[in-house]
Amino acid sequence: MIMINQPLAALACMLAFITAIAHAADPLPSWNDGKSKQSITAYVEKVAKEGSADFVPVAERIACFDNDGTLWAEQPMYFQLFFALDRIKALAPQHPEWKEKEPFASLLKGDVKAALAGGEHALAQIVMATHAGLTTEEFEKIVADWITTAKHPKTGKLYTEMVYQPMLELLSYLRSNGFKTYIVSGGGIEFMRPWVEKTYGIPPEQVIGSSGGLKYEIRDGKPVLIKLPEIFHNDDKDGKPVGIQRHIGRRPIFAAGNSDGDLQMLQWTAAGTRPSFCLYVHHTDAAREWAYDRQSSIGKLDKGLDEANEKIWTVVDMKNDWQTIFPITP
Amino acid sequence: MIMINQPLAALACMLAFITAIAHAADPLPSWNDGKSKQSITAYVEKVAKEGSADFVPVAERIACFDNDGTLWAEQPMYFQLFFALDRIKALAPQHPEWKEKEPFASLLKGDVKAALAGGEHALAQIVMATHAGLTTEEFEKIVADWITTAKHPKTGKLYTEMVYQPMLELLSYLRSNGFKTYIVSGGGIEFMRPWVEKTYGIPPEQVIGSSGGLKYEIRDGKPVLIKLPEIFHNDDKDGKPVGIQRHIGRRPIFAAGNSDGDLQMLQWTAAGTRPSFCLYVHHTDAAREWAYDRQSSIGKLDKGLDEANEKIWTVVDMKNDWQTIFPITP
Repeated sequence: MIMINQPLAALACMLAFITAIAHAADPLPSWNDGKSKQSITAYVEKVAKEGSADFVPVAERIACFDNDGTLWAEQPMYFQLFFALDRIKALAPQHPEWKEKEPFASLLKGDVKAALAGGEHALAQIVMATHAGLTTEEFEKIVADWITTAKHPKTGKLYTEMVYQPMLELLSYLRSNGFKTYIVSGGGIEFMRPWVEKTYGIPPEQVIGSSGGLKYEIRDGKPVLIKLPEIFHNDDKDGKPVGIQRHIGRRPIFAAGNSDGDLQMLQWTAAGTRPSFCLYVHHTDAAREWAYDRQSSIGKLDKGLDEANEKIWTVVDMKNDWQTIFPITP
Repeated sequence: MIMINQPLAALACMLAFITAIAHAADPLPSWNDGKSKQSITAYVEKVAKEGSADFVPVAERIACFDNDGTLWAEQPMYFQLFFALDRIKALAPQHPEWKEKEPFASLLKGDVKAALAGGEHALAQIVMATHAGLTTEEFEKIVADWITTAKHPKTGKLYTEMVYQPMLELLSYLRSNGFKTYIVSGGGIEFMRPWVEKTYGIPPEQVIGSSGGLKYEIRDGKPVLIKLPEIFHNDDKDGKPVGIQRHIGRRPIFAAGNSDGDLQMLQWTAAGTRPSFCLYVHHTDAAREWAYDRQSSIGKLDKGLDEANEKIWTVVDMKNDWQTIFPITP
């Protein structure tokens, strides 16, 4: 008996020691000590602690993250638009009519601003022309090729190198505390799925985004899904809680965004019966990233900022709360 | 050293012994020995076995199950329709006009057949009248109350007692081998979510189904999602691979259905690059359940049966393959 108990005790000791080390290691090393970091860890500890009055069962630990401006950068324009522009250029030889037709004509001359003067309609035309007609597998391959080669015009980095290191740590930290992490983005669902698993550790089935029509058909004896030139779901603003309900069917307890387009998701999260956590990333760092909020045409944060202050949500000040912005790349 | 090693060896021994017992226990005790059971276990063993030529990584072990007629019974009509009829009766006092208006007039007289003579349109009217206008939370509560009290007219059982015991075992067996199990049903997504977790062990986020429109709004200062009287996604036939792509973004490697409405899901599954498994439940047991296939108006299995035979998919003969149909209830 003693022979067995002693080593078992030693094992238990060792386990306790390893656990202690794990706990001692900072799960959010790129976050400066301060109110933001503290509010996150205090929340996670209380909902994950069995016996705590605020304990939430693992199955209900749903965390939703916006992508553009929350997990990766979004300036000077949404990265998916850079993708679409590259597709327009690649497809132009097959579309001689684009030389005369807006928004394509301006785009091909390199005048993105003029092209986007057409607003949402112009944007929809660009996305449809570049995304529709392909099978889902063809599209996946095109995205996968682009994301591993295309570079951001200002930083010269791969787009996946412009993800926020502190947010990667937050995703990991939540997952290690039993949270299921989702992306809930206005970006295209099929544009994100090919790379987010590797980049964020989020599998395709945990990605919610805008989507177009899909049509099942048999081509050359093989079933395929064809992308149609129509909007099926616009996963922005009101569309975010709707997308969450459709995909998850449970209300999140944790939500993070950076713009007014995320406000409804945060409201929906905050209004649940469980203790919830709402976070806004505030772009305050013109030197290391970009600084913008109430007046920005991309990632406008105005009403959301007011509501966050009023409801005492966590507003992350990128300049002061984050020690590093992007991951260090070799 | 020896003091530590001996008990560790004993522990290892004990672990091996427990594992052996677990393996020896039949994971599918309600399945009679035979071709169907054997084909399932042979498939699962080969894809789950590391080093096997047919090994599939855990992340890709996606299994999709139809619900009506595959996981629970569907005769003499879809159970969701019994729910809708009960709702019609409950709502009738608020709708005096229904006394004169089809399909409601016939329903209220108890003549379901006449009511459904109006086909898909009549069905859509019934579903919309009974489902729309409520918030998602109100609807959830109504379903949860109904499912725990309503009884099937023929068997007198709760509807959740009319699930197939062999399929419950199959779900468990797949999960214990690293599969993620999904429901992919023509039934309403919000009709299934309130009870499938308890009944099948499938969480709401792994339920794909037909759905109506949803609208986010603030009611009395509280955000709610309102169910709209419109079809958003019809998760049947072609809609099944489409729904799978939207929700999961990966192709399943295992799919089970029972009708022609599941055929496209099985085709889509079979056409992947990984080793796949397609299964049809064939209702052959008039004594213990119902017997129907090519001529049935509900759960018609005609083209699917031909294709299953041609492609050598597993066709489960309920009468001969299943030792029990429904779980034994106290």
